[in-house]
Amino acid sequence: MDRRPIGIFDSGLGGLTAVRELTALLPGEDVIYFGDTSRVPYGSRSRDTIIQYARQDVAFLRSFDLKAILIACNTVSSTAMEVLEAENSIPMIGVVAPSVQAAVQSSRNGVIGLIGTQATIRTGIYIRRIKALRPDAEIVDVACPLFVPLAENGRVEPGDIVVETVAREYLAPIKQAGADTLVLGCTHYPLLQRVIANEMGPQVTLVNSGAEGARAVRRRLMERDALNDPGHVGVCRYYVSDSVGSFVNLASVFLGHDVTGEVARVDITRY
Amino acid sequence: MDRRPIGIFDSGLGGLTAVRELTALLPGEDVIYFGDTSRVPYGSRSRDTIIQYARQDVAFLRSFDLKAILIACNTVSSTAMEVLEAENSIPMIGVVAPSVQAAVQSSRNGVIGLIGTQATIRTGIYIRRIKALRPDAEIVDVACPLFVPLAENGRVEPGDIVVETVAREYLAPIKQAGADTLVLGCTHYPLLQRVIANEMGPQVTLVNSGAEGARAVRRRLMERDALNDPGHVGVCRYYVSDSVGSFVNLASVFLGHDVTGEVARVDITRY
Repeated sequence: MDRRPIGIFDSGLGGLTAVRELTALLPGEDVIYFGDTSRVPYGSRSRDTIIQYARQDVAFLRSFDLKAILIACNTVSSTAMEVLEAENSIPMIGVVAPSVQAAVQSSRNGVIGLIGTQATIRTGIYIRRIKALRPDAEIVDVACPLFVPLAENGRVEPGDIVVETVAREYLAPIKQAGADTLVLGCTHYPLLQRVIANEMGPQVTLVNSGAEGARAVRRRLMERDALNDPGHVGVCRYYVSDSVGSFVNLASVFLGHDVTGEVARVDITRY
Repeated sequence: MDRRPIGIFDSGLGGLTAVRELTALLPGEDVIYFGDTSRVPYGSRSRDTIIQYARQDVAFLRSFDLKAILIACNTVSSTAMEVLEAENSIPMIGVVAPSVQAAVQSSRNGVIGLIGTQATIRTGIYIRRIKALRPDAEIVDVACPLFVPLAENGRVEPGDIVVETVAREYLAPIKQAGADTLVLGCTHYPLLQRVIANEMGPQVTLVNSGAEGARAVRRRLMERDALNDPGHVGVCRYYVSDSVGSFVNLASVFLGHDVTGEVARVDITRY
């Protein structure tokens, strides 16, 4: 048993989709969440900048005594995971490896679609990892830079011609290739799940990378016998680098409940 | 005569629309541009964070010996101008005051539309300033958070149903109020000028805040007899806080010419 909390971070709000999954899977775990809302988005930035920001995010989380850190951000997981693992002794779980595993398990025809930020797609890590498990796989990857601003502005409903048109354009090459599995390679994208599912059709399995990350955390903690006291009711604390007010409003969209009073601000540049 | 360069800064690329206007108006002036590409966008951040970032931007520019600074960003001009002026002795020209003046001069019926980032609209500064000059003016202001990501992703052409739908929604209350003048209160928005003009119709005058800022710089320098040697051919140097490569690509869209070799990177957190 390990009573220490789990740290989770993301460039902003997307990682909350992983928090939601984790607290459903492991309601007894305490969570410390950090969202870098003063520097979001990461997905359009350079490798150097993403690594620099991710180091500070981890340094802040490590100011708490944690038992593991979930990198609930595909941009960081694909760009900075190796650097972060080399620099930190604490168990780190990214969202790429579990999403790759889920995609390979799900795909029957070996044609797998991947959507993500520009930074995630640029690394090519999903292609390398999927091919390592299934060398004959065909992977069609598309950067979707407008999905995050659309999601953060609440344009997530089927019937909205703006998000539907953007989704149709981004997803066209993946549909055309006949993918039977699509990795939502950004923790924001589950907010667009209904629009994406409508566009892809019911025969395509969507892999939710935040949910896969949460399941990977559960596996890792169970292996190490590091779950919390089963009688404990888990508590989440949220930290953000920009104002608390605007986070509280948007977080309710991601989490499905109000987080007023559970959020504090931190100067991330100090870490 | 004053041979020193003019400093110009913006959260990212939008301020380049002001650079373009300034170099057309004053081809003999040297320019030092800073774009905070590692922390863009500013328009969705809190007042505190915008002020903190703007202070660092000005501190970096002041590491050069400049004769004036143009704040080519409506978010900073509306949120941090007073703080920056109080802290710096160098002449500072924002884009709000000249845009207000242009709007009031242009409007016949006194109904003025304003579009900008969430931060710019939140300050209410345009409304206060316009009413100070024309107390009977009716101002209809709308935050347009999707315009910057759409512009930065090249979705700027008439006929694109995505940007046209978003523009129609944002501009509807301004059209409905019968505005004869619309302030493009963000230096990114001139990239969407054709879409916005089509939606508003030919009877509505668009005020380009970057161009108004550039004209205000010219007026200020002429008043002080501080223009450069008339025989000099002005040179622009560009500094960014994220990678040079992605800036070079997008900057050509804003400037209409290639800037390879004229761009360097700076660690803005050191200022």
